[in-house]
Amino acid sequence: MRVVITGAAGFVASGVADAIANDLNCLGAPITDLVLADISSGTTKGHWITGDLSDPTHIAELFAEPIDVFLHLASLPGGMAETHPALGRAVNLTASLALMGGLAQQCRDNGPKARVVFASSIAAMGALGPHTVDETHPAAPNSSYGAHKQMIEIHIADLSRRKEIDGISLRLPGIVARPFGALGFGSAFMSDLFHAAAAAKPYSCPVSQEATIWWMSRVIAIDNILHAARLDTAILNPDRMVLLPALFASMNDVMGGLADHYGTTAVSQISFSPDPRIEALFGSYPLINNATALGYDFGMDVDVATLIKNTGI
Amino acid sequence: MRVVITGAAGFVASGVADAIANDLNCLGAPITDLVLADISSGTTKGHWITGDLSDPTHIAELFAEPIDVFLHLASLPGGMAETHPALGRAVNLTASLALMGGLAQQCRDNGPKARVVFASSIAAMGALGPHTVDETHPAAPNSSYGAHKQMIEIHIADLSRRKEIDGISLRLPGIVARPFGALGFGSAFMSDLFHAAAAAKPYSCPVSQEATIWWMSRVIAIDNILHAARLDTAILNPDRMVLLPALFASMNDVMGGLADHYGTTAVSQISFSPDPRIEALFGSYPLINNATALGYDFGMDVDVATLIKNTGI
Repeated sequence: MRVVITGAAGFVASGVADAIANDLNCLGAPITDLVLADISSGTTKGHWITGDLSDPTHIAELFAEPIDVFLHLASLPGGMAETHPALGRAVNLTASLALMGGLAQQCRDNGPKARVVFASSIAAMGALGPHTVDETHPAAPNSSYGAHKQMIEIHIADLSRRKEIDGISLRLPGIVARPFGALGFGSAFMSDLFHAAAAAKPYSCPVSQEATIWWMSRVIAIDNILHAARLDTAILNPDRMVLLPALFASMNDVMGGLADHYGTTAVSQISFSPDPRIEALFGSYPLINNATALGYDFGMDVDVATLIKNTGI
Repeated sequence: MRVVITGAAGFVASGVADAIANDLNCLGAPITDLVLADISSGTTKGHWITGDLSDPTHIAELFAEPIDVFLHLASLPGGMAETHPALGRAVNLTASLALMGGLAQQCRDNGPKARVVFASSIAAMGALGPHTVDETHPAAPNSSYGAHKQMIEIHIADLSRRKEIDGISLRLPGIVARPFGALGFGSAFMSDLFHAAAAAKPYSCPVSQEATIWWMSRVIAIDNILHAARLDTAILNPDRMVLLPALFASMNDVMGGLADHYGTTAVSQISFSPDPRIEALFGSYPLINNATALGYDFGMDVDVATLIKNTGI
């Protein structure tokens, strides 16, 4: 079985790549070629193909042999995509379409119908309003990143309906804890907070203590992507989209958990200076109803203590 | 002012092109270059640029000078797109994205922010269910044609939010009366019925007499596209989408109107042999609430008699 992972050197994807490299039978059939694609190589053991996804030659290399499983995890982050629109469009929209089109064409050319897992984002939904959100919440993206994610979701649903791919789009929330000061992510503060507590360092958080946020640890995100790669897609709706189960918690809740875990002194230098733009975008998440995704056996960080333990800092 | 119309030799677009060519001041400012783009030239007087929208050289010709108004009316019809997926994708998705991307880039390069009118389709909504539909009905396309229309709508909304274009997507219903036996349209029967009545000829209709359908005449569609080109877009929702006001009428209603207009003998050879696939796709439209689009001063065929008069056969 030939497996391709895009963005394989990335924060979440490198964990997916490591998990697969460490157990080449973990997706049901033996993997004979684990293709790891990114701009430059990472540390996972596998068949690295480096290049730019906006380069047709690079895409052709990925398609040099038929692909059975395609984990499309490469993205330009949302904050960066908004300020670099041509680059964001090239990576998040044009390249994603080229890849999905290539997979559909492979199937029409009597190749395998590839299992596709797409790292979509809750950004596809846009502003969420005050009421509990589930997967039926209408998508109204308010960023180019979110718009492109929604467009690719629709494309994946259509190609799956045509039986040219067997796709699943996962709407991921912000994942913690990225390396400190991750660039291009409006939600970087979610991770920076954890690092500040772990290191007992000063940190000024750009949202209020009352801010409510959806959380997922990296290990849970990795498990969920692997689960999606093995899932019986017959259980999915025609939109092939799963709103992954996230932990709803306020900054106060997380601060309490961090104080319990690292001690009150460790978090004593963390302060809150809400930036109205960040607060509006990332600080007023409503409740999330996780029933559907939990019913599909996707996982979540069940409470703040588990979330902090799972970040593993 | 430079105006570009794609698909300008097409059934609806040629009427839009004629209306503009006959009054070069009809869009507010004098039009100095009316660019008519299509695979081959039509009859409208203007600056024809012929070519294939999947050819970057052709697209570059359209962008040779800055564009003020862009009426994107070219489409591969839904039925044909479903059976020719690579062609449908090239025309309805890839070319549309290239055109919208070009317009956004033009603006970022300090060119004009173009007014864009996109001929979307009610196919973006997919199966409609039994309840009254308005513009808030969730989109769940069940054809590649509809999926591609929805994807372009999202792209237009995002580029408009970024203030790189000033776009509006019109969801058109089936338009009557196309030339008899129009190819590639699952809804061709809607037009063929009118031709059969006008010519007092035999016709076997592939839906039942009880089928309920949304109707719009070509002249109303043309007026609506011109109205969209002049509309103050500040009144629109962020999705920049207008579900055009359509006439809800059953085949029985339309048959009655045709008998009144052409005489009972003229319609006596029209019979009904429902094809389950066509009936499912085009024969069970629910009621439509036209209030929002009528509030924006878009027009509709107000009753069956007006619809038949407006078809002008």
